Amino acid sequence: MEKAVILLSGGLDSTVCMAVAKSRGFELWPVSFNYHQRHRIELESARRVAVFFGVPKHLVIETNMDDIGGSALTDLAISLPEGDPDRIEDDVPASYVPARNLIFLSYALGYAEVVGAAHIFIGVNAVDYSGYPDCRPEFIRRFQAMADYATKTSVVDHRDIRIETPLMNLSKKDIVLLGTKLGAPLHLTRSCYSDGEMACGVCDSCLLRLRGFAEAGIEDPVVYERRA
Amino acid sequence: MEKAVILLSGGLDSTVCMAVAKSRGFELWPVSFNYHQRHRIELESARRVAVFFGVPKHLVIETNMDDIGGSALTDLAISLPEGDPDRIEDDVPASYVPARNLIFLSYALGYAEVVGAAHIFIGVNAVDYSGYPDCRPEFIRRFQAMADYATKTSVVDHRDIRIETPLMNLSKKDIVLLGTKLGAPLHLTRSCYSDGEMACGVCDSCLLRLRGFAEAGIEDPVVYERRA
Repeated sequence: MEKAVILLSGGLDSTVCMAVAKSRGFELWPVSFNYHQRHRIELESARRVAVFFGVPKHLVIETNMDDIGGSALTDLAISLPEGDPDRIEDDVPASYVPARNLIFLSYALGYAEVVGAAHIFIGVNAVDYSGYPDCRPEFIRRFQAMADYATKTSVVDHRDIRIETPLMNLSKKDIVLLGTKLGAPLHLTRSCYSDGEMACGVCDSCLLRLRGFAEAGIEDPVVYERRA
Repeated sequence: MEKAVILLSGGLDSTVCMAVAKSRGFELWPVSFNYHQRHRIELESARRVAVFFGVPKHLVIETNMDDIGGSALTDLAISLPEGDPDRIEDDVPASYVPARNLIFLSYALGYAEVVGAAHIFIGVNAVDYSGYPDCRPEFIRRFQAMADYATKTSVVDHRDIRIETPLMNLSKKDIVLLGTKLGAPLHLTRSCYSDGEMACGVCDSCLLRLRGFAEAGIEDPVVYERRA
């Protein structure tokens, strides 16, 4: 059975990615990150999703990215703005974490090399997203071009590790529909950026998610603190 | 004063990099990694080197790369081979850590974005080195091409962060001579891969270093446990 490393935050997108990789016949090797994020409670969702899929191992990388800061997600002194549904994609918001996807993909590449996986799945999306530069196709394309020269696996053994972005061109509505069709455990997921136990319902991430479910005509199984 | 982020392991090469960046007039923002490496004692050297240069801050990133493993430096079950001075560059040795330089550069990129540094110095070298793929010019060139599309700084503000590799084409002898000329604190450095308090004198890293000092006609100020 071919292995795939999956970047699993515990949110909607990465959980649908798990389901996509499973539907393609891969053995799932998820990796999650405790980067001292405001919403590290998402790791509990990641854990439950990993259990749901019966994975051989769930790797959790711990790292003090809060000592770098520069983001409302890692520096509690920067306030997490309430989202505005009409201008989510206009600008790079305060929730942007410098180089986060790059750091996560870099760990995933090393992990894929060690476990012998030829594929890495990441749930980036350039349609209904928050405008982060490291979610865009050109970033992923260039990461791939770099990865092909980064590891012993690629340079010496000539086996490339492919970055898979099955959600890149889907709307949030399409992601909800795809996850539902594949039986992904959407009820276990958490997309919210806040540190509350319950999803806040008003941050960018909650707004995008709620809009996706609404457009799909499906009830979001997650309970929200309030609704915009 | 322009800022530069420096990847500082506490070894010879990164310490000479600190001296090069200083000689070019940069304010030094070193970052070191406790990745649970066998030789994390090198962090004590890094700390002393940072103090020597009077840096505004010395960031130490902590991360459990030993849970990824796959290297003699992060998995104590993989033995650290004694080096063979005649065939150091023939193969990728057991001390190779999957994606390590990529992970380190990725953090450095995020950190450079946060502190407002337009330069990142890394002491990679493709002459007298251990054959690691992520020390080669092509890897660095592609990392740069990817980095230009990875951050808010580059994509939105159109200010690129440059990866500087001043040692890339120098022999170890030349690095020793350069460090000596610039007054780098070579007496504070540690290059050894072993976990002993004293440098072992027989791992690849010690062998390359000792050969460099010998060829430069300079006495290595570091005390070794034994000499090959």
